[in-house]
Amino acid sequence: MYLQLDGRGPLYDQLTRALKASILDGRIAAGTQLPPTRELAQELEISRTTVLAAYEQLRAEGFIDGRVGSGSFVSQLQTRPMPHHGSTAIDAPSRYAERAREVRNWDIPRLHRGLRYNLEYGYPMINPTLNNAWGRELARAAAYTQLNAIEVAGLGVLRKQTCDYLARRRGIQAQPDDVLIVSGTQQAINLTARVLVNEGDSVVLEEPHYFLAHQALVAHGAELVAVRTDDHGLVCDELPAQAPRMIYVTPSHHFPSGAVLSMQRRLDLLHYAEQHQCWILEDDYDGEFRYDAHPLAALRSLDEQDRVIYVGTFSKVMFGGLRLAYMVIPAALRADFLNAKYLGDMACPVIEQAALARFMEDGGFERHLRMSRKELKARREALVAGLKEHAHDRIEITDTPAGMHLVVWLRGYDVPRREALVDYAHERGLGLHPMSPLYLHAPERQGLLLGYCGHSVNEIREAMRLFGQCLDHMECP
Amino acid sequence: MYLQLDGRGPLYDQLTRALKASILDGRIAAGTQLPPTRELAQELEISRTTVLAAYEQLRAEGFIDGRVGSGSFVSQLQTRPMPHHGSTAIDAPSRYAERAREVRNWDIPRLHRGLRYNLEYGYPMINPTLNNAWGRELARAAAYTQLNAIEVAGLGVLRKQTCDYLARRRGIQAQPDDVLIVSGTQQAINLTARVLVNEGDSVVLEEPHYFLAHQALVAHGAELVAVRTDDHGLVCDELPAQAPRMIYVTPSHHFPSGAVLSMQRRLDLLHYAEQHQCWILEDDYDGEFRYDAHPLAALRSLDEQDRVIYVGTFSKVMFGGLRLAYMVIPAALRADFLNAKYLGDMACPVIEQAALARFMEDGGFERHLRMSRKELKARREALVAGLKEHAHDRIEITDTPAGMHLVVWLRGYDVPRREALVDYAHERGLGLHPMSPLYLHAPERQGLLLGYCGHSVNEIREAMRLFGQCLDHMECP
Repeated sequence: MYLQLDGRGPLYDQLTRALKASILDGRIAAGTQLPPTRELAQELEISRTTVLAAYEQLRAEGFIDGRVGSGSFVSQLQTRPMPHHGSTAIDAPSRYAERAREVRNWDIPRLHRGLRYNLEYGYPMINPTLNNAWGRELARAAAYTQLNAIEVAGLGVLRKQTCDYLARRRGIQAQPDDVLIVSGTQQAINLTARVLVNEGDSVVLEEPHYFLAHQALVAHGAELVAVRTDDHGLVCDELPAQAPRMIYVTPSHHFPSGAVLSMQRRLDLLHYAEQHQCWILEDDYDGEFRYDAHPLAALRSLDEQDRVIYVGTFSKVMFGGLRLAYMVIPAALRADFLNAKYLGDMACPVIEQAALARFMEDGGFERHLRMSRKELKARREALVAGLKEHAHDRIEITDTPAGMHLVVWLRGYDVPRREALVDYAHERGLGLHPMSPLYLHAPERQGLLLGYCGHSVNEIREAMRLFGQCLDHMECP
Repeated sequence: MYLQLDGRGPLYDQLTRALKASILDGRIAAGTQLPPTRELAQELEISRTTVLAAYEQLRAEGFIDGRVGSGSFVSQLQTRPMPHHGSTAIDAPSRYAERAREVRNWDIPRLHRGLRYNLEYGYPMINPTLNNAWGRELARAAAYTQLNAIEVAGLGVLRKQTCDYLARRRGIQAQPDDVLIVSGTQQAINLTARVLVNEGDSVVLEEPHYFLAHQALVAHGAELVAVRTDDHGLVCDELPAQAPRMIYVTPSHHFPSGAVLSMQRRLDLLHYAEQHQCWILEDDYDGEFRYDAHPLAALRSLDEQDRVIYVGTFSKVMFGGLRLAYMVIPAALRADFLNAKYLGDMACPVIEQAALARFMEDGGFERHLRMSRKELKARREALVAGLKEHAHDRIEITDTPAGMHLVVWLRGYDVPRREALVDYAHERGLGLHPMSPLYLHAPERQGLLLGYCGHSVNEIREAMRLFGQCLDHMECP
């Protein structure tokens, strides 16, 4: 009997696979009696035990009938030819999948990855001491944590630490029962969409806004309405007359411009939400990183009507791969959010949560935050100094002393010229990220979103020198 | 000026809060000049520095106008009275939220938590040596892992280990690019629903089936069609004439009955899916836990047409709080799944993935699996022996030597009698979980799903003795 063993993995596996394949494609016909194990072992020059084991497996799986000893007969299996369908493309994906394909198609280009100086907005730089400190916390947490404990809302000790932190740093008075631990801001946006938004519902965003929130909401089927922002954040007078389902805002530090939503506008926004019976999703994505003063209290801290769903993240303070964030949920929505979290992915991983709670309790978290803030401040200053020195009057800087990025506007540029600049910079090893994907309706003036988390002060100085040269080139190619 | 400090947290915070509250509710009117810092400090008997800091914060937040030195005047803020809306209930939740509320309402009762003997289906028992071994892996991974590396599909090394494992243990030939790491089986089901299912689409399930899959699919808006199972699994002849969007099956070990889908039916199912252009979601939830033979090859291993979406989980082998599972995705769906994962929660936490990959490469994972299997086998044997001894002819056991649970049918019971048994057992400290929530259309005969992961062999013996007494009680109350 001809059998071809493919040489991959243990002999027992190879033989089983070869026999199955031959049976399925009919080379060994149904009803055929397989050779006695001794014979096949001799023929293939393998041990009889291997053949016995293979036959047992085939019997267990239904390829062979008959009990051991009375001969092994190939089962009568009907293998009908498969109908032929020409296309390999997915037949009618869900509406979600279709919308997701559209939004992901005009994603901010990832082609700058790997460049020497990639000024990409993203996650905080790694503090080399964090790796080991965090490793110790994890090991400790693994030793004592109840590994099977699944609390949908998140580990109690972490929710408690989060409340203490929010009271201290963001002016929010919350109880552990108000808190939901989620796997990042992205999940928070998704759960909110799931709980509040039906396909076709209207959602208000600031213009410009966080591109991943935009993408998640569009994929979910929301109709987006973008409301203008200025130096004081969202222009609340221009909120639509027709109530949206939800308003997604970044009041502490507008993403991307950095503007702080003024106190008057905060009150106006809260009043609008109550009047229109809509919800506010406050994304406090980098509220901890303010370099000139204490961080401002969150919008949620003024929210007497319990209409603000608050999101903050640990990933920005710790590291991107942590995937942990927190929400403060209005009482009326709590059950729905817990349902959505449970049905979505049950709960966040338990050891990380335990380690983080301990890290916060120890003071490690705030020590790390202070160190990060100091370093980020130095990087920002290097960036601004570099821009002034090398780019000077060819750009306009939007500088709020906060966060992990800033915006520069290119004087006298249109879309083709901006694209040419970005391409040329890419060739020179400098990754520049344009502002236009952050808009629903991109404006005429061209801007760049400069993230400085990923580079040291010296690298930033170099990058700015390079940026200046690129701008020079655009003037005199 | 009357100010009440609430005694919570640092004085600076207390003062800021008190001033804000007074300004917002009008006790300190707009335009009022706040007292000089020295005066307020003396009045409240706190340091002048504290008052200065509070005024600075209020200025930054927009509560006070005016520069330092020229007096601090309360901003002209319009605080209009909030419109009154009587109800605190959420206004018109999304359709998803409404459906989720319905399904979560008839969740399997969690009131057995905390009972001495809770025979709940769930996560594997904890091997005490795992905690420390795993802690070491985590610490090591934290030390060398790129903490900001976000690979949507999952860490490359883990996907590679998963492929090796699947080839060795489940007969699946997959490449790392076919694999998606997800945060548990629940997320796998959700992503699949997102990518394939529109509201109103039909999904086929086995009858009975995994309750959390049911809940997730109903919440998503699927119309469920339950197809009968027997001792050979899903009765494929009874698949509907009208094509569903998707078929959710547990072919290696039907949940909950334990039946193995016969080879002929596997071929029939694959043929049906190709003919009807629908997809199959194979949930191989405990494929590693087979006690009498090598595990059977997965349905996916026979899938020439690339129509089977395969899900396996690490959480069942390791521990519930790990929240890591893996999918093998047909090529045509890969981009859509990556979109859904990215927009959903970007990626799974990186340190766990790195630790798990290393644990698998080290052989630690399979050592742990072997130890777990040995212990679970012993527990199962104790359960079956205990049932035979104490319950004997009052029940009928469905026993496939696999998995982490088994099913017993109660002879001569109807719903009220079963409910009485469960209540009485609860009072005696024994948690029994009925089968009916696992059905779309509950049958007349009454069954119990007995999970044995959570108890040692001795506890199981005790539990069975207790079970016998409860059955006695039902006969002679």
